[in-house]
Amino acid sequence: MQIDNLLQQINFIKEIDKTKYIKRKTKLFNSDRNENDAEHSWHLAMMAIVLAEHADGPIDILKVLKMVLIHDIVEIDAGDIFIYDTEKNHTNTDAERLAANRIFGMLPKEQADELISTWEEFERGETNEAKYAKSMDRLEPLLQNVSNNGGTWTEFGVNYKKVYEKKKKIKEGSSSLWNYAEKLIDESVEKGILKK
Amino acid sequence: MQIDNLLQQINFIKEIDKTKYIKRKTKLFNSDRNENDAEHSWHLAMMAIVLAEHADGPIDILKVLKMVLIHDIVEIDAGDIFIYDTEKNHTNTDAERLAANRIFGMLPKEQADELISTWEEFERGETNEAKYAKSMDRLEPLLQNVSNNGGTWTEFGVNYKKVYEKKKKIKEGSSSLWNYAEKLIDESVEKGILKK
Repeated sequence: MQIDNLLQQINFIKEIDKTKYIKRKTKLFNSDRNENDAEHSWHLAMMAIVLAEHADGPIDILKVLKMVLIHDIVEIDAGDIFIYDTEKNHTNTDAERLAANRIFGMLPKEQADELISTWEEFERGETNEAKYAKSMDRLEPLLQNVSNNGGTWTEFGVNYKKVYEKKKKIKEGSSSLWNYAEKLIDESVEKGILKK
Repeated sequence: MQIDNLLQQINFIKEIDKTKYIKRKTKLFNSDRNENDAEHSWHLAMMAIVLAEHADGPIDILKVLKMVLIHDIVEIDAGDIFIYDTEKNHTNTDAERLAANRIFGMLPKEQADELISTWEEFERGETNEAKYAKSMDRLEPLLQNVSNNGGTWTEFGVNYKKVYEKKKKIKEGSSSLWNYAEKLIDESVEKGILKK
């Protein structure tokens, strides 16, 4: 039984290597190199660890780590959708749900069920853990765009209103991180790297 | 106080972006593209989660995740040393300890102390968590080299004896993973992708 499990787990481990090929729109800090989903997920995990004291509600940090580590694995099948895409809906699509079932479904049933439900909890964004995890996911590209003189805002002509609308999600997980983020957004307008 | 902490934490978050530029010798699965330390750390974290049932001793999985997520951050200053390097010692050098103090030291004191001590615990490899985390670190490149017809073994002329010597560390964290790894090593010799 443990041997059967192991072979399924190893196949899953090989499959998720593809996460390293999925390019995000956002670039690394002070860089013109696109970030990939594996690097992004690692960075969110590190942020979740060091920023934990700023979470508004009590959080199970292990669950948050699982959420941020797995949240983009579905993009192996479903692809990365730009958060400011005007044609496609960024949030939880049928394609992503199918992907979650296929990819996490490679694992032994109990594990597959746990990861699918952790991923769905993240997507719904209702629990403290999901809210805090989503704060990380919105904060990282904000920091990156500021470091890159506007980054994807400039590149794709995204204005203040759209940025504010997406970023205010940070507030649901952490009011202190939102205070900081709001200040960064205002400063970006002042510096002319984000258009009103 | 929380604001002071936040600014230190944000500076740390920016600094560790450099982990994404540190190239390992090992290539991605079925690929000729080198893996970087951030991708590697993410993959070890995922492996640690899905393979946890194979740990020999009871483990605190949160501590294991912290270990694998941070273990290579010191390479920002100290560089990646190839595990089969014959001139430099792969393990815990003075340069790495200095790097740990500088980089984790960017965080508020309590956090810095915790991450430095977690990193040192990993390096010493004595606790169940460190042993299991090190099993992950040895298993991933084995899987990659097998997928790449010998990968770094072929590229750098590393033979069976050296591979066996390094990989048997897996046994300290997990006898079932070691059984599997030993079989992979033997099969690699049979297939001619690892020389006796």
